[in-house]
Amino acid sequence: MKHASHLLSAFRLTPIAVGDPPLLNAAGVHAPYALRIIVELQIRQGGWGISEIPGSERILQSLHKALPRIMGMDVFQLHSIRQVLQAHAKQLADDQRGLNPWDARTLVHIFSAVEVACLDLQGKLLDRPLVDLLGGKMRERVPFAAYLFYKYEGEGAASPLPDRAAAWREARRAAALDPAGIVGQAQAMCGAFGFNSIKLKGGAFPPKEEVAAVLALRQAFGPEVPLRFDPNAVWKFDTALKWGKQMEGVLEYLEDPVRGQQQMAALRKKIDIPLATNMCTTAFDELPESIRLQSEDIILSDHHFWGGLRACMQLHRICHTFGRGFSMHSNSHLGISLAAMVHLGAAIPRLDYALDTHYPWQADEVIAGGKLPIEEGCVALPEGPGLGVEIDPRALQRLHQNYLKCGLKERNDEVEMQKYQPGWTFQPSRW
Amino acid sequence: MKHASHLLSAFRLTPIAVGDPPLLNAAGVHAPYALRIIVELQIRQGGWGISEIPGSERILQSLHKALPRIMGMDVFQLHSIRQVLQAHAKQLADDQRGLNPWDARTLVHIFSAVEVACLDLQGKLLDRPLVDLLGGKMRERVPFAAYLFYKYEGEGAASPLPDRAAAWREARRAAALDPAGIVGQAQAMCGAFGFNSIKLKGGAFPPKEEVAAVLALRQAFGPEVPLRFDPNAVWKFDTALKWGKQMEGVLEYLEDPVRGQQQMAALRKKIDIPLATNMCTTAFDELPESIRLQSEDIILSDHHFWGGLRACMQLHRICHTFGRGFSMHSNSHLGISLAAMVHLGAAIPRLDYALDTHYPWQADEVIAGGKLPIEEGCVALPEGPGLGVEIDPRALQRLHQNYLKCGLKERNDEVEMQKYQPGWTFQPSRW
Repeated sequence: MKHASHLLSAFRLTPIAVGDPPLLNAAGVHAPYALRIIVELQIRQGGWGISEIPGSERILQSLHKALPRIMGMDVFQLHSIRQVLQAHAKQLADDQRGLNPWDARTLVHIFSAVEVACLDLQGKLLDRPLVDLLGGKMRERVPFAAYLFYKYEGEGAASPLPDRAAAWREARRAAALDPAGIVGQAQAMCGAFGFNSIKLKGGAFPPKEEVAAVLALRQAFGPEVPLRFDPNAVWKFDTALKWGKQMEGVLEYLEDPVRGQQQMAALRKKIDIPLATNMCTTAFDELPESIRLQSEDIILSDHHFWGGLRACMQLHRICHTFGRGFSMHSNSHLGISLAAMVHLGAAIPRLDYALDTHYPWQADEVIAGGKLPIEEGCVALPEGPGLGVEIDPRALQRLHQNYLKCGLKERNDEVEMQKYQPGWTFQPSRW
Repeated sequence: MKHASHLLSAFRLTPIAVGDPPLLNAAGVHAPYALRIIVELQIRQGGWGISEIPGSERILQSLHKALPRIMGMDVFQLHSIRQVLQAHAKQLADDQRGLNPWDARTLVHIFSAVEVACLDLQGKLLDRPLVDLLGGKMRERVPFAAYLFYKYEGEGAASPLPDRAAAWREARRAAALDPAGIVGQAQAMCGAFGFNSIKLKGGAFPPKEEVAAVLALRQAFGPEVPLRFDPNAVWKFDTALKWGKQMEGVLEYLEDPVRGQQQMAALRKKIDIPLATNMCTTAFDELPESIRLQSEDIILSDHHFWGGLRACMQLHRICHTFGRGFSMHSNSHLGISLAAMVHLGAAIPRLDYALDTHYPWQADEVIAGGKLPIEEGCVALPEGPGLGVEIDPRALQRLHQNYLKCGLKERNDEVEMQKYQPGWTFQPSRW
């Protein structure tokens, strides 16, 4: 061998629980903690690469079984690493037919954790920011949108926000259950972080109330601030048609108003608002039907669920090639995921829309130096090599203790909602 | 800045002329020389990256005007470099309306030259083979197909083949103008290089004769050797239907039997052979119509014409996503282009077909150490960092002298054919 090799030699998996406010959505309400897994991969020479993914006991166990298979592999051999994980998944499926074998989504989820950590390591080995491994940066600062939620009062198990966020602290704790509450939340969030686009998560209240909130936001912010609205596919077709019409000329895009590509395609023909999705078209193998049906205008990528950062670059090329817009979905997350999103957002040749992020809602942090600043609605590319962020070991331990204490093993917004509204059940098409 | 930077500081462009035998195709016959341009990009620290592209006076001049614009840019900033070239192209188009401004294809062509040289440099800086910048290698040896041509006697202005290729030397010089000639050429080429797939370039003789050659190849090699046939879109629809039917069950794929996506789509419904293309769908913006019409089963990429190696990785993802096969087109080329093709071929997660290459037809070489070996039909990944091949300065000068002497400024197979058949003209649909 005439060139360098950097072989994976060890891994650490740390499940953590992050304080999360009681944010409402179509599936219920966020628990006091959001679960994440911090992945660390080490090479023989001693360097570490890191990543952060949505957590659950099932994914944690899958990672514990899968990662030993890739030890000894070179950190640049991502295609081969994926192949090994795929073979492992197939073997599990053969061995445990019916016993919750890995499906394609588990593979994608786990590979994304490995890919980001390997790219972080590659960047560190090269003394280059991760974005350079995606073709280089098109921008230094990546724009995000204010992500508004209906919410109950309180901030879950979150740590107190640091002083500098005082302006936002009150609104983050306050209930927001009507248009005035949502507008107040938006003003506080935009004031604190300078966001220039706004997204409202809906699906929690009857359409009439939520559309009133959208129109109140337009009234308060004017047409120069793009607005999006996302009822999480909980509307019936006629409901979406009726209330979609009310938001024509108001929304930048309407996200997942109805469930499934067929309904999205039918609705898209009848209302004059671009439709976006992270629920109806969620994987590469669903793209051909999305394109054929013309079911959506905008695909919301998420490197955790599309198979990593390079896969999202490819998804962007597909969107661009087929005349679809591209943006980014988010879940409750910390700074490692944010850094990965920022590197991807900086590399995307044509960024059509400000990206989603839950980041202002989480006061906890696992990276050294505390939370990455959001200024003028943007996050600056971290400057160091790789992801440009490092784990704070004490913060990691504290958040891991949260995990051990809280007893949660998976996200279940329905069970959480039943604590507020006994007997509440999720309905895929509620209105 | 907390990380390394490697800024482009100089470039060298060397037009070369490479001996090329009189190979026939639908557009005429190859001139005694094929034109290529060798691109060298230097960074301030002193390292060089190299690439090789199809040459013409027009492309050479375009490169001379374009490359000064990207001096001072970081070798990892490929998205920004592309953006600068695009802005330059737009400015030229505005300035010189009607005076042969850059079109999208010129931009893609020039960017591919820059991208490969930058990736070569990146690999050298990282002490990593280029394939690792594409996600790592899925295979150590990349399979190619024997590429047969009808030809007149002679080897053009080619240098004599080195001794080790003695078995192939005679066939390479011989005429091949009928089925027996083609079978003989195939046996010599497969004998010398161990190819396990065969492609015949057609479009030169009436369909009946060429189909007879295909059937003779099948007879000689049996069903275990995949056969492809490419009449370069020179057949009329009814001709393709009639003669395509004769090759059902015989061909692995039929390449560009007719001209244009519409005709390809119509033909594809009527014959039971996968259709491939490098003429009907040739750019990203033509893919949506190709997918919509279902005009082809297999897209033949070419990093020189699709915008570089990463663009071809994205093309592969699109092919995979939409259920299309992926392989690679070739022109007369030397070892730098072959090395780039091999790195790409090694990185492709799912390589459906052996790749095309003209390489056995060119005796000249520009890389140090002479021609890369083809063994058992495969080329091994070069072992060094980056592309893993280096320019031989004396060979480069000799091939540049060829360029200055030969007087050719662009490829024109029609003019060349008129030397054999006075009055011959190209016809887009000859039969």
